[in-house]
Formats: sequence, C-alpha cells, structure tokens
Amino acid sequence: MSAKKRPATTATRTPTVTRAPFDLPEFLAANAAVVNAALGCYLPRATTKPATIHKAMRYSLFAGGKRLRPALCFAAAAACGGTAAAALPLACAVECIHTYSLIHDDLPAMDNDDYRRGKLTNHKVFGEGIAILAGDALLTQAFAIAAHAEGTPRYSPRDLIFEIAEASGSLQLIAGQVADLEGEGKKISAAQLKYIHERKTSALLCCSARLGGMSANCTPTQLAALTDFGYHVGLAFQVIDDILDVTQTSEQLGKTAGKDITAQKATYPRIVGLEKSRKIAKELTAKAFAALKPFGGRAAALEALAHHLLERDK
Amino acid sequence: MSAKKRPATTATRTPTVTRAPFDLPEFLAANAAVVNAALGCYLPRATTKPATIHKAMRYSLFAGGKRLRPALCFAAAAACGGTAAAALPLACAVECIHTYSLIHDDLPAMDNDDYRRGKLTNHKVFGEGIAILAGDALLTQAFAIAAHAEGTPRYSPRDLIFEIAEASGSLQLIAGQVADLEGEGKKISAAQLKYIHERKTSALLCCSARLGGMSANCTPTQLAALTDFGYHVGLAFQVIDDILDVTQTSEQLGKTAGKDITAQKATYPRIVGLEKSRKIAKELTAKAFAALKPFGGRAAALEALAHHLLERDK
Repeated sequence: MSAKKRPATTATRTPTVTRAPFDLPEFLAANAAVVNAALGCYLPRATTKPATIHKAMRYSLFAGGKRLRPALCFAAAAACGGTAAAALPLACAVECIHTYSLIHDDLPAMDNDDYRRGKLTNHKVFGEGIAILAGDALLTQAFAIAAHAEGTPRYSPRDLIFEIAEASGSLQLIAGQVADLEGEGKKISAAQLKYIHERKTSALLCCSARLGGMSANCTPTQLAALTDFGYHVGLAFQVIDDILDVTQTSEQLGKTAGKDITAQKATYPRIVGLEKSRKIAKELTAKAFAALKPFGGRAAALEALAHHLLERDK
Repeated sequence: MSAKKRPATTATRTPTVTRAPFDLPEFLAANAAVVNAALGCYLPRATTKPATIHKAMRYSLFAGGKRLRPALCFAAAAACGGTAAAALPLACAVECIHTYSLIHDDLPAMDNDDYRRGKLTNHKVFGEGIAILAGDALLTQAFAIAAHAEGTPRYSPRDLIFEIAEASGSLQLIAGQVADLEGEGKKISAAQLKYIHERKTSALLCCSARLGGMSANCTPTQLAALTDFGYHVGLAFQVIDDILDVTQTSEQLGKTAGKDITAQKATYPRIVGLEKSRKIAKELTAKAFAALKPFGGRAAALEALAHHLLERDK
C-alpha cells in the first residue's frame, strides 16, 4: 500500500516502513521538463543571427531525446542528498555533449545515418557543413553551461570542467568513436568491442552519475560507488542497444533498424550471439545494482533507472 | 644603445632612460617554445591508444603555426604586469581552439582546402572522419587545459571558461564560419564581410588579449583597452590575409593562393579594391595603437606585435 493511500487512522508515532514504489515515469517527465526549459534558456534563440546555426543546434537538441543522462545526474544527486537545482547546469551540459556526439556520429564521413529519433538527421536537413558546426557549437556551449555550476567544498568548478572534458575527450567518448570507425568491416574481438562500448557509451553515462554526486558534494566512497554504477549501467545500456538493433523494426526504434548489420558493425549479438548478449546485459545490471549498496534507501531513483534501461524496448 | 651594452662606468644612481627596441623575433620564438612544450605535455602522446586520433591532433597542432594568439595573450599579460606562467594554460587553450577551427574549416563540406601551412590538411592525411574527431578532441582539450588556469581576485576560473566559450561559440567564431559558408558565391556587402571577419578572426584574437589581461588580474579599464586593441588588430589581421591571398604566390603563403577568388569568396580586395583594403588595414592598426595608451611604456610587446601583423608578407 502506498503512503499516499494509507488511511489517516493507521498513523502512529513509530510508523511502519511501507516504501511507495518509485514513480519513474513521473521522475523522468519532471526532470525532462526542467532540463528542456533550462536548455531553452541557455541556448541562443532560433532567430538569433546567424539563425541557421541556432536552428540546427535546437533541431537536434529538441528532437525528442529521452534525457537519460540528465536523469542519471539528478538521480545520483538525490542519492547523495543533493538538489536538482545544483545538478541542473551539469545535466544540461552532458545533454549538449551527447547531442553533439550524435550529430557528428551521423555524418556521412562517420556512420552515415539518415534518421535519428524518428527524424531526419541534422546533416540531412541543414547540410554537412552546418551539421559539423552545430555539433561544434553544442560542444562549446556545453562547457559554458557547465561553468554555471557553483562547485562544492569537495569539488571546485574546475573539477567539474575536468570531469566533462575527460569523459568526452580523446581518451573516452572520442576514443570510442575512433575505434568504432576503424573497426567497421573488420573482424574484431569481444574485448575490442567492450573497449568501444566502454568509451562510446559508458563514459558519458558514468560521467553523468559522477557529476550528479559531485554537485551534491558526495564523499569519495559515494563517488566510487557512482562510478561503478555508471560504468555497468552504461555498458548494459549499449549491449541492449545492440540487441534492439537486431530484434526491433525501424518503426519501433525511431531509427534505421538493422543498420549495424548493414554497416558490418561489430555488435554483441554478432560476436557472442543474441542469448549470451541478453545474459551479459543482465549480469552488468546486477553489478550496477550491487554498486548501489552504500546508498541504502536513497538510491530509489538510480535503481528504477537501471531497471528501466534494461527493460526498455526502444 | 641597449642596457646590456652600456659600459659599467656610465652607471649612475639615476640612470638615463634609454629604452631598447623591443626584440619581437626573440619574444615570439621564446613564447612559441614555451607554448609548444606545454602543449606537448597537455596532449596525450602520439602513441597513446587510439593512436590515430592523437597523431591527427598533434599533426595539425604542431604543423608550424606562428602561435600569434598565445603571443598576444602573453603580451597582454605583460602589459598588465602579469607573468607568462599564469597566462600559459589560457594561451595553450586558445591555440587548441584555433587549430580545431582550421581543421574543420578545411573539410570538404566547408572550404575544401588541400594545404595549410605548407602541409596537407588534416583530412587529406587522416580522412574526413578522423579529421572531424581530431577537431572535436582539440576543442574539448582546450577547455580541459583552460581549467588549469588558477583565476585571480577579479576573474574566477569560471570567468575564464565563459570567456573562451563565448569567443569560440555560435555567436562569434562559429557564427563567422556559418556566415562565410552561407556567403560563398553570393554578392555580399562590405558590412556583411565585416560581420564575418569580426567573428571568424577578430573574436579569438581579441579573446587571446583579454585572457592575457585577465590572467594578470587587469583592471576593468585595462580589459576594455585590450578588447579595443584585440578587436582592431584582429580585423586588420584578416584584411591583410585577404590582401595576401591576391598578391602572393602559394609558395610564399604555404597554402593555396588565390583560393578565395576560386571559391568566389567575399574578401576586402574583391569588394572595396586592393588599395582601399590596404588603407583600411592601416586605419585599423592605428586604432589598435590608440587603444594601447592606458598602458604607457608597458605595452611594448603589444605594439611590436601590431606592427608585425601589419607588415607580414605571409
């Protein structure tokens, strides 16, 4: 029985612990609304000169992304007793980084994708030149937004900038895309695929969780737990993405299904098979849950998110 | 007579003021050496995995750039009584931003240039995908490097990040490239050309001077003077670039000469003629010199740099 529905007469001075199930859809919707409003304010208007670039930036940023990275950031902040307000600039910065990486990944010189989130990709609408610049501008904007974060006694504003730059730099996010690009059409090992997924997907998800904790002035122990959690959720997330690419239709995904097969891309199902891929995803999620132990009951949002990421069908 | 050569016997307790002419080549060489050494440390080694991206980043970053933006940063710091050590991370960050912008500008979807600084452009050596990512990585690295700057009583580390993000974002550096891209093959006015040059060239040069001042905890008056100086030097610099493109050979320039004409690009000589372009460059430089008045004798390096930028032949 949820706390909301419990009749007033049952209230005592030592109430029974009846934890309400965490309302993830409500959490995601509320946070997405906050993030969208803030991003709308941080970015120049679509009519600001030169209008093309601001239209292109907003086109991809407001293309219906699920705002999972900001949600992870807020959930981690909550787990460490922090507020959404303190985490907000960091959540927005990470979403800008994510969007820029998608725009550039979709380019003809990279994955050459025509659709993303059910809409034409940035370069299909605005042309390659503007798409490259829109990605550049979102990446630049990400750091301007992150610089709005105040910092805490344990983590200075500079630490927060380092954190974002490291996760999205040439040793992490970009390294993943480079290895992915170089691996296309080649036979790669499961270890190499893990290297790609760790960097291309896990790094920024892990960074999102860490930034949330840092905005709440988390302890070193909490930061280590969030790192462990983010790393495993991130890897699981990507394995599931690979699985969905072979099991779902383009309509269900909102992007071209089977694209990875057509591009001769290395994926978990292709290298270890579909069933083993599902098993790996479940194991990774179990490790993610185990990482949450130090937070006790305060990690409800993080737990719910991990379940959501494993059970999603698009 | 320089202070160094003056015989010991002429020394008195109130020495005559005999200012040595400022040795700009020495200043440029010394600062370039410091910047190159620091950039070499800040960036991952060329052998760090994935090696391709680090080779590509270093290829363009160490392609013989003149390090004018770092020089401007150091000169501005000196004019405000600061040190090169405090300005160093900012000087390196600006050079990374400049190099990333060149790599992306040279891409086939942009200016489609095969040569830069006498060497093949990044995408001609590493391919388009890696060139895009090398630019992204340098842009990201720029903020990581800038976050090493300590800040001063008047300017926090966050102010320095904002400064760089603003100058290189969608309202300045990127706006210039967008307008340039959209203006190709079209008849544009002198005012529109000025808009492009202000953003594509002047913004980052102005930012370099401002950052140097900020690293020295400059006063608001000094910052305004540096802004005025950087803006006018930056515009003059670009007008001269336009002039050199029509008056010099490819060999002299180290890049494809006459490229602007071939690409039907709007340039000062094309819109207002060669003689008027030269006159404009001189007027802009005069305004830059006028801006240096508040610094008195301490602006020797800035003055020498301005002369150098107007008198260069490549």
